[in-house]
Amino acid sequence: MKQAVEQGTLYVISAPSGAGKTSLVAAMLRNDEKLGVSVSHTTRPMRDGEVDGVNYHFVSRDAFELMISRGDFLEHADVFGNYYGTSHIWVRETLARGQDVILEIDWQGAEQVRRLMPECVSIFIVPPSAEALRGRLTGRGTDAPEVVERRLKEAAEECRHALAFDYLVVNDQFEVALADLLAIVRSQRLRMAVQQDRHRALLTGLSQ
Amino acid sequence: MKQAVEQGTLYVISAPSGAGKTSLVAAMLRNDEKLGVSVSHTTRPMRDGEVDGVNYHFVSRDAFELMISRGDFLEHADVFGNYYGTSHIWVRETLARGQDVILEIDWQGAEQVRRLMPECVSIFIVPPSAEALRGRLTGRGTDAPEVVERRLKEAAEECRHALAFDYLVVNDQFEVALADLLAIVRSQRLRMAVQQDRHRALLTGLSQ
Repeated sequence: MKQAVEQGTLYVISAPSGAGKTSLVAAMLRNDEKLGVSVSHTTRPMRDGEVDGVNYHFVSRDAFELMISRGDFLEHADVFGNYYGTSHIWVRETLARGQDVILEIDWQGAEQVRRLMPECVSIFIVPPSAEALRGRLTGRGTDAPEVVERRLKEAAEECRHALAFDYLVVNDQFEVALADLLAIVRSQRLRMAVQQDRHRALLTGLSQ
Repeated sequence: MKQAVEQGTLYVISAPSGAGKTSLVAAMLRNDEKLGVSVSHTTRPMRDGEVDGVNYHFVSRDAFELMISRGDFLEHADVFGNYYGTSHIWVRETLARGQDVILEIDWQGAEQVRRLMPECVSIFIVPPSAEALRGRLTGRGTDAPEVVERRLKEAAEECRHALAFDYLVVNDQFEVALADLLAIVRSQRLRMAVQQDRHRALLTGLSQ
């Protein structure tokens, strides 16, 4: 008889933009083949080089709104007139296959996910200082002042919700922050709730 | 003003004898200077080479029983007529200095500690198979059959309480099990409850 596959873990990772989240998540994926990212649904137009089903599931507004009305989304948001959302069914099926799933979303998405899947593990990533963040968000020098201003406000708003997360990782040195994130994932797999399924026969054998 | 020191974490580590717990804990201590082990009180006679206050705090039965009556122990046990116990005051003071403390105790001690300090993190270590355990406990071949028999019974009894622990580590390959234990410790230090004290100024600065 095939052994039951243990359930994967859902990771919600949020950060103010400029904290290095995207590079860190990409490095996590390279380091750990049991980790995958969710492919979101969106109504924004496909860009050159993007592939449907890989970068996003590209759908029409009607299709997206039908999915909302059916409660298909674990979380969704309207960003400047385009919808973005994570399919609840896809996440559940992926976790059921024993794969861990990372959602890179903002604090509002994280709040929606926590309500529907309170067993998720949420991680907030911050830069090492307010100055570093300001530097990264203004640094390019090519953006209009009001764009920079909006980014700074959004970053502060994001950080005001950090305390709702399970873990805080400070991205001062990239390799240290990456090791932090991988330690969180590794330790989650060692929790008794997970291990007692994986090692049921061993524990029974040892107790006799 | 000096920053408040964040509170250390109390780790309770249990295992059937033969699982390799003592070597793993020794390796954890070598790898992580913020980790320390508790020095127990005992009434058993000091052996050659042992140092009072290093290996144990050696005390008389009267002194030990006075400590029990005052509720000084986080956990204590009577093992073949000798008392062993962990001072609650020592543990609390050490944690308050920001040091993490490991207690190597059996499931009964773990149960006592969980009742008094439910915020402790408990880890159970097992060998990779019942055969491996049997091999390690009978292997020397020099012990009387009834001694071996008692050891096997105690090991099984210990393992019947594994599910009460927070984490399960399987000691199949020593280096993997050690990395597992260090990942658990690392991830505990990243919990928001710990980090929000350590990085209070940063989080405030980022939110403005």
